[in-house]
Amino acid sequence: MKNPDFSNLSAIYVNCTLKKSPLKSHTSTLMAVSRRIMDKENVKTEEIRLIDHQVAIGVQPDMTKHNWDKDEWPTLFEKIIKADILIVGTPIWLGEKSSVAQKLIERLYGMSAETNAKGQYIYYGKVGGCIITGNEDGIKHCAMGILYSLQHIGYSIPPQADCGWIGKVGPGPSYSDTEWKGEKVHPPVGFESDFTNQNTTFMTYNLLHLANMLKSNGGYSEYGNSKKKWEDGTRWNFETPA
Amino acid sequence: MKNPDFSNLSAIYVNCTLKKSPLKSHTSTLMAVSRRIMDKENVKTEEIRLIDHQVAIGVQPDMTKHNWDKDEWPTLFEKIIKADILIVGTPIWLGEKSSVAQKLIERLYGMSAETNAKGQYIYYGKVGGCIITGNEDGIKHCAMGILYSLQHIGYSIPPQADCGWIGKVGPGPSYSDTEWKGEKVHPPVGFESDFTNQNTTFMTYNLLHLANMLKSNGGYSEYGNSKKKWEDGTRWNFETPA
Amino acid sequence: MKNPDFSNLSAIYVNCTLKKSPLKSHTSTLMAVSRRIMDKENVKTEEIRLIDHQVAIGVQPDMTKHNWDKDEWPTLFEKIIKADILIVGTPIWLGEKSSVAQKLIERLYGMSAETNAKGQYIYYGKVGGCIITGNEDGIKHCAMGILYSLQHIGYSIPPQADCGWIGKVGPGPSYSDTEWKGEKVHPPVGFESDFTNQNTTFMTYNLLHLANMLKSNGGYSEYGNSKKKWEDGTRWNFETPA
Amino acid sequence: MKNPDFSNLSAIYVNCTLKKSPLKSHTSTLMAVSRRIMDKENVKTEEIRLIDHQVAIGVQPDMTKHNWDKDEWPTLFEKIIKADILIVGTPIWLGEKSSVAQKLIERLYGMSAETNAKGQYIYYGKVGGCIITGNEDGIKHCAMGILYSLQHIGYSIPPQADCGWIGKVGPGPSYSDTEWKGEKVHPPVGFESDFTNQNTTFMTYNLLHLANMLKSNGGYSEYGNSKKKWEDGTRWNFETPA
Repeated sequence: MKNPDFSNLSAIYVNCTLKKSPLKSHTSTLMAVSRRIMDKENVKTEEIRLIDHQVAIGVQPDMTKHNWDKDEWPTLFEKIIKADILIVGTPIWLGEKSSVAQKLIERLYGMSAETNAKGQYIYYGKVGGCIITGNEDGIKHCAMGILYSLQHIGYSIPPQADCGWIGKVGPGPSYSDTEWKGEKVHPPVGFESDFTNQNTTFMTYNLLHLANMLKSNGGYSEYGNSKKKWEDGTRWNFETPA
Repeated sequence: MKNPDFSNLSAIYVNCTLKKSPLKSHTSTLMAVSRRIMDKENVKTEEIRLIDHQVAIGVQPDMTKHNWDKDEWPTLFEKIIKADILIVGTPIWLGEKSSVAQKLIERLYGMSAETNAKGQYIYYGKVGGCIITGNEDGIKHCAMGILYSLQHIGYSIPPQADCGWIGKVGPGPSYSDTEWKGEKVHPPVGFESDFTNQNTTFMTYNLLHLANMLKSNGGYSEYGNSKKKWEDGTRWNFETPA
Repeated sequence: MKNPDFSNLSAIYVNCTLKKSPLKSHTSTLMAVSRRIMDKENVKTEEIRLIDHQVAIGVQPDMTKHNWDKDEWPTLFEKIIKADILIVGTPIWLGEKSSVAQKLIERLYGMSAETNAKGQYIYYGKVGGCIITGNEDGIKHCAMGILYSLQHIGYSIPPQADCGWIGKVGPGPSYSDTEWKGEKVHPPVGFESDFTNQNTTFMTYNLLHLANMLKSNGGYSEYGNSKKKWEDGTRWNFETPA
Repeated sequence: MKNPDFSNLSAIYVNCTLKKSPLKSHTSTLMAVSRRIMDKENVKTEEIRLIDHQVAIGVQPDMTKHNWDKDEWPTLFEKIIKADILIVGTPIWLGEKSSVAQKLIERLYGMSAETNAKGQYIYYGKVGGCIITGNEDGIKHCAMGILYSLQHIGYSIPPQADCGWIGKVGPGPSYSDTEWKGEKVHPPVGFESDFTNQNTTFMTYNLLHLANMLKSNGGYSEYGNSKKKWEDGTRWNFETPA
């Protein structure tokens, strides 16, 4: 069987670390594992480190019209909406996704009133996943929130679309650290975790497969899900219960 | 454009109400709204009210081999795994999905070691959604947990795969009630909620579209996601970080 | 300074493992660490393994009046409500507390309409905490749900009332295991986790301190929180906004 | 019985709205209901609208030492740590607390390495609660996250420490709105919700009662919970399991 061709796909990785460049982001390092696969599959990829940009807070498409001096969101959104795949990366703090990840979700949500040519929510036809890193606890909880939000605004979620690395309970090194409490660690922390490697790989390929399928299908048919048609009174086979 | 043909699809609705038949389940009533659409689209549907069955507690495929006298799970699982679509319905108690829904997830998870002919997790190629009812708060929180679990074990989640009905804060009537505090309510509570009706419709059709796409595609290619091949050493384009 | 005297306090540990006796419960083993402290402080303690009892599903005080043949809940509730301290223990499955823990919360909630002599919800004056074990992820997420529910129905939560043990990401041994993949592990897994030991100790003592304080205070004054008085029209210094 | 005297207590309300002053914050309006009670009980109160301040992102006590030009957190933290009571207010977006609330939690957590004179975490002896507003869903889910975080870093949580207002499912007016879709609403939305009013009142008084009790008790005894003593080897009645 011939390998699938993913070369007409593009993916954007939004890294929601709390650390500005050039500080090291552990999340970025795990994202790179996924991105390397995509690169080798000839997918066009880019990573945005959100905190490096002046993104305003709020739920309007452009916050400069709402009391904010600066807002790079409109530019970043253009990149996100052009990509077939969105991967949200976040560190874990106190068991939760970062405030930067929460801001990203608020801004994505702030665009969700827009519809595509079929009258569907604008994220229809795109696929989403997430990459989580922390030093002890919370991959699943963070993934729940992120994947829920993505599907709710219109992204499709393939199987096993969450991956990450955490160490055992209590303080400890983070993903890719090469030192802990003054001692060298080699290979870097987490690099040999079969579980993390497998999940990251499966997520990456499942995102590609589903994006490919949706793209070659022209996204979703608008039969039964067009916001615009619903507002015009179309109900397909829905009947008001009585 | 011709309407899509969904007649080779099947869907199973698992109702996780705490109430045994013949007690009225509000969740069942909202499920019926979705199911009616499927029926009219010639999809084969069935509702299982889980609490009517003697399903053991645990994470093994058949708990009669682990200290339990009875376990109807293996029979119910056959139905679930044969269906192209799984819709989990749950009431909300104290902001959470029901203990019956949690048990369902545990049992589904208990089967996740099994793989299909391609060596993928057994739920690959199937799609999932959820229907939530309560009298005041928690649709999104319940949906987060359910949809997360489904995708984690292998289901695909189409856009807007969660729907439900809740009333405003505080005690109040439930979906489809025709009386509240001694007064008649007509039409029944929630039946005219445009929001609930739209979301239920969109979810139903999006489940159908994605199930159709996956079915005609023969599920997911095993390139990049076969558990069996990973164990055999295949890594596709994954590289151990260094 | 003299050590505090906790000898008039009692604590109940409800273990929500999915495993019936005499199967080994890892959660029980960690609960025993906390319980040993209490025993040495002369607190009266008891562990209930919920799954060993025939507890019906539902949100009514006694489900035998609602279609169920058997329901041991009323008896168990008597023990729970008599204890000054409730510690809920749960394993983690797919990042969530167990279905048994969810059932416990539903049943506790099902009693919350009852009020004490002051007209307060019946759990006022009691304190709650939780103990979570899993093999890789989810202590904080499970604790969120449990502690939220306890405070919402009337329990008080002292500082750092959650503790637990998890291993690093991926399959691995559970708390107190002495073997993993055919190899002996000594000391048993997690026994030397300073983090788990410290958190378990702090939780235990904080539960005792707050229970002691509340007990010697006669619980909470009913000024400002009596359900009964609110229903009678008392509003203290609350004013309807206008 | 004489009413309790709360006049030596102080409370800080941190409003995590996404809207800068002078935009109207619905959350602030509900906070005012609680604050009015406190004022009339002679408690010293203050509301901080976090978004009006230049608070950096990160988990260090002062981010100006870590790449940020400005950080008002140290000043705000002084106010928060001086108050006996912390009430976190947040709007709900897509079922979650706001990114501003998440940032607050990150910054509070960033101080949690500090200990008081007894060697306890610095928030010991203080009490916390939350106020949530949204237009349709999520009070409990937001409260779970906030109250969990507060107790985990050292706050005590009294009974029923969460309150809020939401409308029924779907788009709708927010708390205190006087107009919806061009029509006047009177009284303002939510003002007559007996449920919201009761919960806000009970929370407020329970925070006061517990803060009073803890203050007159000099906080928590350090027997069994002093981080400093644990590090020095004190174990009280904890025994390493074996």
